[in-house]
Amino acid sequence: MGVRAPQEEWMVPRRWYNIVPDLPKPLPPYLKPNGEPVRPEEFEVLFARELVRQEFSQERWIPVPPPVRDVYLLWRPTPLLRARRLEELLKTPARIYYKFEGVSPPGSHKPNTAVAQLYYVSKEGAGRVTTETGAGQWGSSVAFAASLFGVKATVYMVRASYGQKPYRRVLMELWGAEVVPSPSDRTEAGRRFLAEDPNHPGSLGIAISEAVEDAVKTGAKYVLGSVLNHVLIHQTVIGLEAAEQIRYFGDYPDYVVGACGGGSSFSGLFWPFYHEKRVGKAERDVKFVAVEPVAVPTLTRGEYIYDLGDTAGLTPLIKMYSVGHGYKPPPIHAGGLRYHGCAPTLSLLVAEGEVSAVAYRQREVFEAARLFAQAEGVVPAPESAHAVKAAVELALQAKREGRPVTILFNMSGHGLLDLAAYDEYMRGVLQDVEPTAEEIMANIARAKALLRQ
Amino acid sequence: MGVRAPQEEWMVPRRWYNIVPDLPKPLPPYLKPNGEPVRPEEFEVLFARELVRQEFSQERWIPVPPPVRDVYLLWRPTPLLRARRLEELLKTPARIYYKFEGVSPPGSHKPNTAVAQLYYVSKEGAGRVTTETGAGQWGSSVAFAASLFGVKATVYMVRASYGQKPYRRVLMELWGAEVVPSPSDRTEAGRRFLAEDPNHPGSLGIAISEAVEDAVKTGAKYVLGSVLNHVLIHQTVIGLEAAEQIRYFGDYPDYVVGACGGGSSFSGLFWPFYHEKRVGKAERDVKFVAVEPVAVPTLTRGEYIYDLGDTAGLTPLIKMYSVGHGYKPPPIHAGGLRYHGCAPTLSLLVAEGEVSAVAYRQREVFEAARLFAQAEGVVPAPESAHAVKAAVELALQAKREGRPVTILFNMSGHGLLDLAAYDEYMRGVLQDVEPTAEEIMANIARAKALLRQ
Ligand SMILES: Cc1ncc(COP(=O)(O)O)c(C=O)c1O
Ligand SMILES: Cc1ncc(COP(=O)(O)O)c(C=O)c1O
Repeated sequence: MGVRAPQEEWMVPRRWYNIVPDLPKPLPPYLKPNGEPVRPEEFEVLFARELVRQEFSQERWIPVPPPVRDVYLLWRPTPLLRARRLEELLKTPARIYYKFEGVSPPGSHKPNTAVAQLYYVSKEGAGRVTTETGAGQWGSSVAFAASLFGVKATVYMVRASYGQKPYRRVLMELWGAEVVPSPSDRTEAGRRFLAEDPNHPGSLGIAISEAVEDAVKTGAKYVLGSVLNHVLIHQTVIGLEAAEQIRYFGDYPDYVVGACGGGSSFSGLFWPFYHEKRVGKAERDVKFVAVEPVAVPTLTRGEYIYDLGDTAGLTPLIKMYSVGHGYKPPPIHAGGLRYHGCAPTLSLLVAEGEVSAVAYRQREVFEAARLFAQAEGVVPAPESAHAVKAAVELALQAKREGRPVTILFNMSGHGLLDLAAYDEYMRGVLQDVEPTAEEIMANIARAKALLRQ
Repeated sequence: MGVRAPQEEWMVPRRWYNIVPDLPKPLPPYLKPNGEPVRPEEFEVLFARELVRQEFSQERWIPVPPPVRDVYLLWRPTPLLRARRLEELLKTPARIYYKFEGVSPPGSHKPNTAVAQLYYVSKEGAGRVTTETGAGQWGSSVAFAASLFGVKATVYMVRASYGQKPYRRVLMELWGAEVVPSPSDRTEAGRRFLAEDPNHPGSLGIAISEAVEDAVKTGAKYVLGSVLNHVLIHQTVIGLEAAEQIRYFGDYPDYVVGACGGGSSFSGLFWPFYHEKRVGKAERDVKFVAVEPVAVPTLTRGEYIYDLGDTAGLTPLIKMYSVGHGYKPPPIHAGGLRYHGCAPTLSLLVAEGEVSAVAYRQREVFEAARLFAQAEGVVPAPESAHAVKAAVELALQAKREGRPVTILFNMSGHGLLDLAAYDEYMRGVLQDVEPTAEEIMANIARAKALLRQ
């Protein structure tokens, strides 16, 4: 079983790292449908001012406000563990470490940014936020943070999940949030989809449209759980801590690995190592590996284009890897990885060859997760299980090559609210699904047509 | 929100504390049905030798084997937090602290002893253990520990829970345990109950009988999750850490509070403070408060008598507070508190007036738990929620009396696998249930008749 690095109060960062000034190329701007760049002020209708400032910031370090750090201290620093028993089972010369974000009350890395966002929202005097959620990881993190800062939260939850995965809904309600199955009759967007089909199962794209419309119309603020720079900046507490902690083992990663939905948890872990590499502080030639599902192959089969962030077209155009905003992700259990796009910063780094990407099928992913649970005792979230699978593959490769490499991966959440998915895996009823080349090409073509790219 | 005490590696104890030599009176022996004391050797059929030695030990300190401590380090020291925002919401002058055992991979304090027991079992060469579980907290802790030590585990799970609460079953299977709905056709006891009723919903008492019979017949070892001395001894890591941690706040408890099923988590927290009090190290005249459900009022309405540990009569007679082994606990959601008896050590201390007991109804308990979740972000297990309720009541009393007392309670587990119960509470469909005086009297009378007490 694992060995744990020290976790001391001083390790919790007092500043977040922002990769933007360290990128190999300037980040392409967000664009309006007419091709003009979006001005920061235009974001302030939706987001708290300080968050917009961070979104466009060129500063490398951004202070963590003390009240935010106080909340982080409830569960941070999170553990960094060496998975020694997994190494033994794999008979690999590799050393495998994981950073465990599942110890937060909502059970994932998402509160790292939810707490920061809700702090700024409450400080700027807004009494209510809106957001969307699929299976509920992000929504429950918002509900948690909103309750701590005394802010009201309305969460538009994809109707299919609302019905089938009631537990995270209950968790949100327990923390005092209002949870609305989406599409709903609260918004014009929702009513349009309900008119088409009164039993519409909903989608993340529709839920985003409803949350945005609600915020714009009522003067509430909107909060987003991934993709945008300010979100990824908040997540760097993960990697800043990990870079301290792994040195306690006298070690340094050759590979930093993370599952990638919108890219926030992976970026939160690898950015600080990227910075160390740039300034010559990295102790090895560290490589960065993003992991995604074969069913939603944004980085491995998508294209680096301008595309919409949502389905209905309420967000700006973002230069990113995308399989097209119209792509309908198959119902894999890693709900947090069912996103057609990817953070613009991460997309740029993949395009520049600074980060590589791999994709796995869900059955092999659950197989790796089960192995991990039995070896180390921790049950991975289905999203995090993708990183487990990649780490296991790298460790087996190290064994074939006889190289004692060091692998560090992000265990972004625990799987205690995903046991139904494990049950399906163990009963052998999980399916592997893969989009056809035509499906992906057609969706990318439609996205490209938006700006005649 | 809360403030967390330091959690450093050295705080994880290298020895457990045993209260037995410090009790105000000798502990009455375990008896056979004929009234003769059970000899330690007779326990060795069922339990690992070292565990039997600990069960009868008069030593005050028992070393924690290094491999057990290594596993503890996966999640220990657990956090000790001050619930500052709860204090503010209650407008109380009291300071409220909680020790949070929910950070273990199975989510409760139970692995503190499961890991120790499985270590000794594997060290003594047994390849398989059997046990019983209700909702699955104990069973999942055994599955977790068994997987880490490479031991097979068979868990007899109360059939009603097996069907209705599938998630902890899945968790046990994920960790590699075999889960058998009880009553089963594997044992004579099980077949007898199935013959009576092929759809028998089962009970903890029946599941114990099956696990014991299976172990005796196959040479496997049996492991138990509460009540016995050796189990409570292992749990003292909780209080030993807490006694260090609370001093970081420059504070010391006036009240140590814990929910009580078999009594292991509460004892694990209060024993070390009891020891400090005895040896003059306690900084205040600390009081100990056990909390139980009104539906299973062992300490508040039971009697201090010799009674069976199980329903079918396979265990010895234990001198303890009991509402009678035939008592059928109503289906409250705090499954871990549905036990007719209570640890013999705790019973003796209650009988001697060294520990007091209070009982609450489940709706008021869930109300306190929801308040806590919104104030502090942590979702209490339904069992732990009883301690939350008691802490809130003590804090309100302190407010009425204008006394700035310090309250320390045991948050023995998180409630992420109990969200269905919270859902019922929030939908207003939870019922409060209470046994009649006749029901309790009749059951106690039947228990007393066993030894003509
Ligand atoms: C546990 C977990 N990991 C990873 C993700 C993927 O999101 P991101 O790539 O932004 O970290 C999610 C999203 O919900 C998640 O819940
Ligand atoms: C979270 C939790 N707390 C408390 C208990 C009660 O048991 P004990 O009194 O032995 O601690 C249980 C039993 O399953 C439990 O799961």
